[in-house]
Amino acid sequence: MRPGKVYLVGAGPGDPGLITCLGMKMIRDADVIIYDRLVSKELLDQARLDSIKVFAGKGMGESEKQDHINQLLLSYASEGKMVIRLKGGDPFVFGRGEEECIYLLQRGIQCEVVPGVTSALAVPASAGIPVTSRLASSGVTIVTAVRSNGEVLEAEYIPSKGTLVILMGVHVVDQLKRRLLEVRLPMEPVAVIEKGTLPEQRVFVDVLERLDQVVKENQVRAPAIFVVGEVVKMRDKLKFI
Amino acid sequence: MRPGKVYLVGAGPGDPGLITCLGMKMIRDADVIIYDRLVSKELLDQARLDSIKVFAGKGMGESEKQDHINQLLLSYASEGKMVIRLKGGDPFVFGRGEEECIYLLQRGIQCEVVPGVTSALAVPASAGIPVTSRLASSGVTIVTAVRSNGEVLEAEYIPSKGTLVILMGVHVVDQLKRRLLEVRLPMEPVAVIEKGTLPEQRVFVDVLERLDQVVKENQVRAPAIFVVGEVVKMRDKLKFI
Repeated sequence: MRPGKVYLVGAGPGDPGLITCLGMKMIRDADVIIYDRLVSKELLDQARLDSIKVFAGKGMGESEKQDHINQLLLSYASEGKMVIRLKGGDPFVFGRGEEECIYLLQRGIQCEVVPGVTSALAVPASAGIPVTSRLASSGVTIVTAVRSNGEVLEAEYIPSKGTLVILMGVHVVDQLKRRLLEVRLPMEPVAVIEKGTLPEQRVFVDVLERLDQVVKENQVRAPAIFVVGEVVKMRDKLKFI
Repeated sequence: MRPGKVYLVGAGPGDPGLITCLGMKMIRDADVIIYDRLVSKELLDQARLDSIKVFAGKGMGESEKQDHINQLLLSYASEGKMVIRLKGGDPFVFGRGEEECIYLLQRGIQCEVVPGVTSALAVPASAGIPVTSRLASSGVTIVTAVRSNGEVLEAEYIPSKGTLVILMGVHVVDQLKRRLLEVRLPMEPVAVIEKGTLPEQRVFVDVLERLDQVVKENQVRAPAIFVVGEVVKMRDKLKFI
């Protein structure tokens, strides 16, 4: 049998209208869709009625889950099927898409990436914060608060100027704040955005030295994104967009 | 007359399939579309036949052009029209969307941003380079090579670890290389991607200390994106995606 192909498709930041047209077409054409927790039901409703939909990795550990997903992708593609691996955000921005691609390519399965709008940039926008600005910031750095080895990100990943967007920082906010203060100033503006782009989105603005208090006082829960830098102040002028 | 509304829509990185579904819907509904040089003809072909399409800022200086665009947006919206401001990439990632938004909001015109896939992340992906990777990089920094004051970016915008994506660096590659070497190592892998995501895309891989030679020897022209960091090596395993 002729082997199938796997398309790693970015579903975007949450709002189902923010998937790409190509990604939506792929969902409608797919034989099999293997999807993550962050993918909206409205997108899955666009799939063919006879397509196979698999929720990836319920109740497993991280590495067990990834092995399971890799095997599912390989197995369906080997049967000649058109397989969509549907991920929140963008497959190549903290999405582990590159691991799945390499696994498949090494086993002779064709693989293609369809980029998506990453939450790291769309969530600040939805809170009225542009990540760059001609006057306030010539750069933006996107980091995860915790590295794959379980440790809080090193200061070497953080430039002293420009906007910082920090993912997955809620559970390590104390350590993270100390790490940020090795490089950034205590009075730099910071925004905490909970459930960005969704109707229940909450936004808190303060200064970096109060980041941990802001998270605790407001009982912020994941998923939340932190933004550090002068661009946060632009929200005053842009929050009604 | 009831004032209209302006939607700042990201057209994505080049391939017309990479606009969002919401962005495409807006193009089809719009009364007026004011578009940039980097927006593809296929997207404009989706507009209503009776819509007004305006190419923004032909043959003007940068600041003159921006004033002209602001005035166009205000004038059409004041006539009660639904106006789309269509920009390559994402309106809030080096798109000056925030300036247009603030201008309009201050004059009582409603304004909404529809994010797009930014070229800064999709172009590396299309060349087989994931900007992050669990093993190779926990962060990505996106910068423009030249700041709004005309000077090459300061070293303070560049972290010593993680992936760097540099936009608009071709014309200042000598100065840029010297600036990068203040923070990064001469033997770090670098990729130069010309006309990313388009059929005529070219990719060159080398090390940072040869960045200027790579650009000159291959007569690389804008638009081109430079990627610095360990993730560039992953292209060996991913270039056939």
